Amino acid sequence: MSHITATYKVFDQKGDLAKKAEGIALGLTIGSWTNLPALEKKQLEKHKGEVISVEELVPSADDNRYFSSKRTVGLIKIAYPAANFSADLAAILTTMFGKLSLDGEIKLVDIELSPQLEAQFPGPQFGISGVRERLDVFDRPLLMSIFKGMIGKDIGEFQQQLKQQAIGGVDLVKDDEILFDNELTPFEQRITTGVQTLAEAYEETGKRTLYAVNLTGRTFDLKEKAKRAVELGASALLFNVFAYGLDVLQSLAEDPDIAVPLMAHPAVSGAMTGSPYYGFSNKVLLGKLLRLAGADLVLFPSPYGSVALEKQETQDIATALTTQSQLKPAFPVPSAGIHPGLTPLLINDFGHDAVINAGGGIHGHPAGADAGARAFRAAIDAVLAGQTLDEAAGQQPELRTALELWGQR
Amino acid sequence: MSHITATYKVFDQKGDLAKKAEGIALGLTIGSWTNLPALEKKQLEKHKGEVISVEELVPSADDNRYFSSKRTVGLIKIAYPAANFSADLAAILTTMFGKLSLDGEIKLVDIELSPQLEAQFPGPQFGISGVRERLDVFDRPLLMSIFKGMIGKDIGEFQQQLKQQAIGGVDLVKDDEILFDNELTPFEQRITTGVQTLAEAYEETGKRTLYAVNLTGRTFDLKEKAKRAVELGASALLFNVFAYGLDVLQSLAEDPDIAVPLMAHPAVSGAMTGSPYYGFSNKVLLGKLLRLAGADLVLFPSPYGSVALEKQETQDIATALTTQSQLKPAFPVPSAGIHPGLTPLLINDFGHDAVINAGGGIHGHPAGADAGARAFRAAIDAVLAGQTLDEAAGQQPELRTALELWGQR
Ligand SMILES: [Mg+2]
Ligand SMILES: [Mg+2]
Repeated sequence: MSHITATYKVFDQKGDLAKKAEGIALGLTIGSWTNLPALEKKQLEKHKGEVISVEELVPSADDNRYFSSKRTVGLIKIAYPAANFSADLAAILTTMFGKLSLDGEIKLVDIELSPQLEAQFPGPQFGISGVRERLDVFDRPLLMSIFKGMIGKDIGEFQQQLKQQAIGGVDLVKDDEILFDNELTPFEQRITTGVQTLAEAYEETGKRTLYAVNLTGRTFDLKEKAKRAVELGASALLFNVFAYGLDVLQSLAEDPDIAVPLMAHPAVSGAMTGSPYYGFSNKVLLGKLLRLAGADLVLFPSPYGSVALEKQETQDIATALTTQSQLKPAFPVPSAGIHPGLTPLLINDFGHDAVINAGGGIHGHPAGADAGARAFRAAIDAVLAGQTLDEAAGQQPELRTALELWGQR
Repeated sequence: MSHITATYKVFDQKGDLAKKAEGIALGLTIGSWTNLPALEKKQLEKHKGEVISVEELVPSADDNRYFSSKRTVGLIKIAYPAANFSADLAAILTTMFGKLSLDGEIKLVDIELSPQLEAQFPGPQFGISGVRERLDVFDRPLLMSIFKGMIGKDIGEFQQQLKQQAIGGVDLVKDDEILFDNELTPFEQRITTGVQTLAEAYEETGKRTLYAVNLTGRTFDLKEKAKRAVELGASALLFNVFAYGLDVLQSLAEDPDIAVPLMAHPAVSGAMTGSPYYGFSNKVLLGKLLRLAGADLVLFPSPYGSVALEKQETQDIATALTTQSQLKPAFPVPSAGIHPGLTPLLINDFGHDAVINAGGGIHGHPAGADAGARAFRAAIDAVLAGQTLDEAAGQQPELRTALELWGQR
């Protein structure tokens, strides 16, 4: 029977995990079971939530510090029949973590959809291979960069920054997520200027670059706006999915007229993932749910910057995005505080099928963003060739400058 | 200048709140300031975030337990110029708590919009007075009830439950938030059956009842679905706004063809509000943002059930929903685990302009849901008349039964 399985980490005050599990399985489906008449049991059987497993864990030192009274920590896995909800992410979220999200310390740490249910979601339309084809780059991790401080800047500044980044060899350039529709660099003008600028860069270098324009505004305008962007030649869309809703991303992914890669930004997601005791794991929210909804690229904080996630969490996100399934894999994009000296660590952690995303680590290069991009590309090539960064820096002074400035790890 | 002010509670590792505040104000707007050339300063001045205040707090005992190393706790208030974002909630969320939500322990505890910015949001279209007019009830808190366990049940059960609740004198009846489109009780049939059933009840009692049907499904279908619901006579809509997005609620509120009260359910919101160290305060998320977006009624856990909020948090939500502003006030709806014995506390806490919402506290009445509703109405009347519940129960055996079963507080 089609279903979704949710695994919760719970911190139970009453010390009876089995009872808690049964309470969740019934409370979020048919309400009660034991005392029902046989006929009603037959009628409701297919709607009844099932406890799949209950596992007690040893509380961590953090748990023991956090709670002033004794808690029983455990993992509870519940299966919810798909018969209970429509096959959309809003219904699924409400079923498995609606009221339950308000019920004390409880964290949704994993989900699994039955194949029939998963098949009702689009997943990435381009995925890793589709993005690579658009770029004609197959043999290395991709390099992405971000515009620097565009608020209050004009289209000339936009054009200049984009050109520099592209000339330097960046594969993707994205808007800053806090750049909205504005008079100085309007949405449509960013797209048309971007198309022209990237065509010029291609003339010079023979290398393609995608520009992800930030899709913003009112929800019910987004599809028309995205279609207009595609008509104007947009090559990718950046989307603050958690400021809108997962289902909105899904609709963008499903629309055949919005045939460009979708890049999901984690803005606002920290409100739902930060605590060990509440909300969603990053694996669920940034990994499984974004892949289901159709993100082609997913940004998340790397383990190495000032805004950082635990390494295990970043690995879990990347695995959720790329593991074998009927959905295409999506690109993990570790971000925030990335500089060329981190390239060996990032490739070691995330492999070839990842995007290395840098802002200050490209723009902050003393010889300019083009030099910053070249330093990064040299670092990537070095790692793939089995060289140390120091060895590569001997032949590539821009990389040497970057390593001197930001160091290595 | 038009702006939004955000107040964050921070738990700083570096012990320099002023520096942290300045980092936020610049980092989320123009990036840097001090070393800019004068010309650029002039150009960027109106886009620069401003630190309004920085206040150090004494860490609580919980804070000291939670953090293994020393933290400086404080409130930081930042103003973001409206010139930086489009006037929509997705842009506002991304600006004030996008990347920042991922930056360690930080909680968004308050927001204030300048009047010009606030005026760009609809607020409640009906509000407290509009809902009261639809019910013709002006002199007491309203009473709401919920269907019991409708998953797997048919339209006959729906009809019977609705009739019982209405006959008993409930003002509003809502779908359970986990009831989605389904074959046994399809959306449109719930509405048409509801209209007919409530008309019959009105014939018998002369009392009006509103039924809030759960608006579910794919985001881009919701407006058409809501319009169809209104055409069919729906008297209110229940909406799992946090499974979708605040901006979607706003669009429903703004649509002149969706002219029925909107009831916002807090499903999923616990993922964003539960932790003291991450996410949003309930005051911001369930109070200020839902009122801005146009909720007419807002459900939240009362301080008294098994799923409960701290009393101060519930007061903060209610104040945010009802305090004087250019937006209409919305109804606070304290919910979860409510029974007649809590009526004096609820009226004391939330006053007359609130909705008392009960599920089991109405359906669980030994003499049926109609008796449960009458017991509640008697309890409300008693409190307004300055009687004790025990006094009232002397004249009203259904209330006495309820008090014996569930007790009083
Ligand atoms: Mg950014
Ligand atoms: Mg409910």
